[in-house]
Amino acid sequence: MNISLAADKEFDVIAVGRACVDLNAVEYNRPMEETMTFKKYVGGSPANIAIGSSKLGLKAGFIGKIPDDQHGRFIEQYMNGQGIDTSSMVVDTEGRKTGLTFTEILSPEECSILMYREEAADLYLEPAEVHEDYIKRTKLLLISGTALAQSPSREAALKAVHLAKKNGIKVVFELDYRPYTWKSAEETAVYYSLVAEKADIVVGTREEYDVMEHRLGKGENQATVDYLFQHEPELVVIKHGVDGSYAYTRSGETYRGRAYKTKVLKTFGAGDSYASAFLYALVCGKDIETALKYGSASASIVVSKHSSSEAMPAVEEIEALIEENNTIKS
Amino acid sequence: MNISLAADKEFDVIAVGRACVDLNAVEYNRPMEETMTFKKYVGGSPANIAIGSSKLGLKAGFIGKIPDDQHGRFIEQYMNGQGIDTSSMVVDTEGRKTGLTFTEILSPEECSILMYREEAADLYLEPAEVHEDYIKRTKLLLISGTALAQSPSREAALKAVHLAKKNGIKVVFELDYRPYTWKSAEETAVYYSLVAEKADIVVGTREEYDVMEHRLGKGENQATVDYLFQHEPELVVIKHGVDGSYAYTRSGETYRGRAYKTKVLKTFGAGDSYASAFLYALVCGKDIETALKYGSASASIVVSKHSSSEAMPAVEEIEALIEENNTIKS
Amino acid sequence: MNISLAADKEFDVIAVGRACVDLNAVEYNRPMEETMTFKKYVGGSPANIAIGSSKLGLKAGFIGKIPDDQHGRFIEQYMNGQGIDTSSMVVDTEGRKTGLTFTEILSPEECSILMYREEAADLYLEPAEVHEDYIKRTKLLLISGTALAQSPSREAALKAVHLAKKNGIKVVFELDYRPYTWKSAEETAVYYSLVAEKADIVVGTREEYDVMEHRLGKGENQATVDYLFQHEPELVVIKHGVDGSYAYTRSGETYRGRAYKTKVLKTFGAGDSYASAFLYALVCGKDIETALKYGSASASIVVSKHSSSEAMPAVEEIEALIEENNTIKS
Amino acid sequence: MNISLAADKEFDVIAVGRACVDLNAVEYNRPMEETMTFKKYVGGSPANIAIGSSKLGLKAGFIGKIPDDQHGRFIEQYMNGQGIDTSSMVVDTEGRKTGLTFTEILSPEECSILMYREEAADLYLEPAEVHEDYIKRTKLLLISGTALAQSPSREAALKAVHLAKKNGIKVVFELDYRPYTWKSAEETAVYYSLVAEKADIVVGTREEYDVMEHRLGKGENQATVDYLFQHEPELVVIKHGVDGSYAYTRSGETYRGRAYKTKVLKTFGAGDSYASAFLYALVCGKDIETALKYGSASASIVVSKHSSSEAMPAVEEIEALIEENNTIKS
Repeated sequence: MNISLAADKEFDVIAVGRACVDLNAVEYNRPMEETMTFKKYVGGSPANIAIGSSKLGLKAGFIGKIPDDQHGRFIEQYMNGQGIDTSSMVVDTEGRKTGLTFTEILSPEECSILMYREEAADLYLEPAEVHEDYIKRTKLLLISGTALAQSPSREAALKAVHLAKKNGIKVVFELDYRPYTWKSAEETAVYYSLVAEKADIVVGTREEYDVMEHRLGKGENQATVDYLFQHEPELVVIKHGVDGSYAYTRSGETYRGRAYKTKVLKTFGAGDSYASAFLYALVCGKDIETALKYGSASASIVVSKHSSSEAMPAVEEIEALIEENNTIKS
Repeated sequence: MNISLAADKEFDVIAVGRACVDLNAVEYNRPMEETMTFKKYVGGSPANIAIGSSKLGLKAGFIGKIPDDQHGRFIEQYMNGQGIDTSSMVVDTEGRKTGLTFTEILSPEECSILMYREEAADLYLEPAEVHEDYIKRTKLLLISGTALAQSPSREAALKAVHLAKKNGIKVVFELDYRPYTWKSAEETAVYYSLVAEKADIVVGTREEYDVMEHRLGKGENQATVDYLFQHEPELVVIKHGVDGSYAYTRSGETYRGRAYKTKVLKTFGAGDSYASAFLYALVCGKDIETALKYGSASASIVVSKHSSSEAMPAVEEIEALIEENNTIKS
Repeated sequence: MNISLAADKEFDVIAVGRACVDLNAVEYNRPMEETMTFKKYVGGSPANIAIGSSKLGLKAGFIGKIPDDQHGRFIEQYMNGQGIDTSSMVVDTEGRKTGLTFTEILSPEECSILMYREEAADLYLEPAEVHEDYIKRTKLLLISGTALAQSPSREAALKAVHLAKKNGIKVVFELDYRPYTWKSAEETAVYYSLVAEKADIVVGTREEYDVMEHRLGKGENQATVDYLFQHEPELVVIKHGVDGSYAYTRSGETYRGRAYKTKVLKTFGAGDSYASAFLYALVCGKDIETALKYGSASASIVVSKHSSSEAMPAVEEIEALIEENNTIKS
Repeated sequence: MNISLAADKEFDVIAVGRACVDLNAVEYNRPMEETMTFKKYVGGSPANIAIGSSKLGLKAGFIGKIPDDQHGRFIEQYMNGQGIDTSSMVVDTEGRKTGLTFTEILSPEECSILMYREEAADLYLEPAEVHEDYIKRTKLLLISGTALAQSPSREAALKAVHLAKKNGIKVVFELDYRPYTWKSAEETAVYYSLVAEKADIVVGTREEYDVMEHRLGKGENQATVDYLFQHEPELVVIKHGVDGSYAYTRSGETYRGRAYKTKVLKTFGAGDSYASAFLYALVCGKDIETALKYGSASASIVVSKHSSSEAMPAVEEIEALIEENNTIKS
């Protein structure tokens, strides 16, 4: 099955939400207490997806709020340099800050992050700063779950979804669950189900769908898709880590994608690179089975490198890895 | 046209949201500065609707949060005494307060209110305090717009709507717009349209629908119903003050109800008494045209009296007024 | 001993802090749940002291913040009508509210209050709204402990004390402890000791001094005055309820005042009427022993009446009661 | 003149307030947007002064709050490793963060900082976490002005001053004015004058004293010391940048210290290194004139190096620089 998208749009994808700064440990395989140097990258799930998509050749735009300081200007300059349209990035005037993520790489399997999200500018995007004219210009609108974590960013994201649906623009919901900024699991479930019911494509890990369903144990994929297909979604992707990912369509098909083996440096950035390449494949008109391969290959490349944004692969790298694995398999 | 409701339910209506205290001027037709005595009543739109419905003979329940103080206990005791099931009213444990509304009656045409809504307990109802088992027991779930004004009451109301829809319970959305507790008109429009799209019956004034549509000037009823009937609603009531009210059905019918003349003491409470009697008529299986008459008659009785809750009329009073007006007209 | 005050000042006393609205139960000797009518009075300790002083013939001024609403205007009009200079009462422009105190009179011995202090305008007096020119015009500056409970009112009160000391104006500190608005007992102790050390006259109950000293059990008066006389105070009044009150001077004298018997209606307002009459006596040049009698007599008159502010007695009433008791005693 | 200090104390100095993380630009002489790597150091004025003092051989302790995360543990480990007693550093349990300071070195003359101070753990030190027993063990208690910027750290610092004065411990007030966390200049002036009046030794720049006096233009040193010597201070140090510093004593002496020439890398850390060496000299019983030299020499060494904490000099370096300058001068 292929997903049909509007043909005559200027942008392939417009992402909504946070664009932040990652401070990655230069000395790694040790506790962060012993890391003395940090390298700066643009970060944040929707920013990473916009960067990854742009690197693959999609035309991407971004709706978000950045601070009026050195980190804010760095983000805007970097994304602009990557070919992303930043005309809808709003500069905060209230002294808010860029969200920061310090990464700790204890070992390839044990990574953790230390987030600075207090008064982060991205969470202060106002609904009045989201414009119908801009949203009408894209094939896909990508909403990151974290944009729903606090007001007024929450209302800005809800308004973007409302305007997209009103104008027949397909909505992609990347669950991107970060417990840090949410008040309670109940609250997350309320907004995750609200937006998932209205989205056309939903992408997340099994654990993130359990959060959406406000479930303590691990849910069944079938129950999740039965619920979502009563509403707007036509494609639901559920990721199971090293066990690969599954795509379900409203028309009843199920596809499975394998995870690609790689030498892992750290686990950050896997989801964002997956989403970039998966959406790239859909926009190029590839079938869902192929899109799953693009997603997995892209993720496996990023986890072998130091950053999440700068490490986003080119199409050739992805296709080479797929080809290589096809050969191995046979 | 009649609205079909589930037959086998314990409650006719469960209202969600605020139950507060009104302090009505004992000496009126003067500025509040010169009013020295105030009389205490239960107030708040959904509480008034529950009281009005109960007085008319419906079995009503209430989901809300009241403080652990003398005003909170007064509310619970009064509503319980009116036959309302208060088993789902939660007592706040964080020292919050009962919302207060001081009323100023300068003249029958010039009324104003002075609201105390800071840290009002009703706005702190948590989603975890809304239970599926309770909501399953009613024919109608009534959501008041003010419950959406702040978190966590907002999420509690959204969860109640989600649970009602999941269980096939009809949702009535009374727009009940009070600018006081909202941060911006944009924010109100986001949540009003979100809930109105999911409701089965929507009731409000023309001005309140303009708020929902985030419109500066006055909108057209036809545009409003064209929009809402693309979503879940099957019945939309739009009130135009002394020019009467209109009911629109998804199947294309339009009904008009006249306003009844009365000796007005004050304008408060008209909307709540309208909603109580309108819903009463629907539950009793009366047609929409008749339901509009019940609403108008009930409203005209309440505006001639001192309170909003205690003044809620009995069926006989409503029917006598309708009869009297039918006679006059002929 | 007499307290020497500047002779050439326009005001006898300027009070700083809250001016609020009391809503007193019209039907009493019952729980508030059963009280249906409330009578409105101006309230708040420093407002009551200004009103009481003014009724006794002192020239009083007031520094405080009132809301831009009907209750705010009522307060200003009432205090102005009592002869108080309200030129330094600032009108809030941020939508804050008048603090409210609902009184419950279960019996003459069991009284309680229900306070509304969230976003109360009086706590938002800014230090920039306290002016040296105004403070220079008074003999006594009266600080109420509650003004220290929150910023920015706290800084406004500290600035007023600073300016008074700088200009040789005597500072009276009325401890007026209301736990409601304080975050912790530790915090109260920090500011109470800070201001008490700088004040010239300190007035409070034994329990309030225990709060100042951050003491769990009941402290000894001698320890309290030993501590305070190492700093600025020259006169310390410690009230022991029905056991009367004690005044201690820096020069080592101790005076005891008896409590006057009366038919108690409620306990509210006793402290404010005590302070008004005590300060009146000092300003009139009476000795401390006589001032204690004025305080006690005034308190006993107010507790026999319905309000705290309107019930403030005239000089003749106070003197008649003192005379009557002198006669009885002999 | 020498300052007499208690002889029999375990600690020479206990500092109160913030201990944070500095992230210093590794690539400098460029805008921060172009700096891609940052090096981590312990920072924050009172932490730097404790580190500097400890390096010079004083026995230092610290009262402050650090987060329960990797940065918090780094701070505690580093300071402990420098010989500072960290037994009174409290670990925050509410998820607060370490304050961060990114430094931008455009040129030796143009340096700026980007501070992260939202929900910084140090500002949440509670008065209940400051203990009399600990404060009794030191010769000097050092209060940093920034600790007064917000509650509850403000009350913790006020309590520390209260306990020091009660026990005859000398209080050093380092004005350390950082506009970022203060609400208004009026508020700063209130608390700066409050603590400066109670301190024994006050140290700051001319500009900081202007903040304390809530002055728009530049004040005169003589007016400042005339005011402060009416209260508790016995020694007041006023720094005038490259024009050197002045020390005034209550007994009427004035001393001037020259600034030492150096090759400046950045301007950060000058004040903290000055204070460390000045206090070291006082504790060692050196006269004030010599102490001013120690301060200047220490400052000039730190501004030539990359960090503020790790660059703190040893006694030999300071004395060598003083000696060298003495020789040059002659």
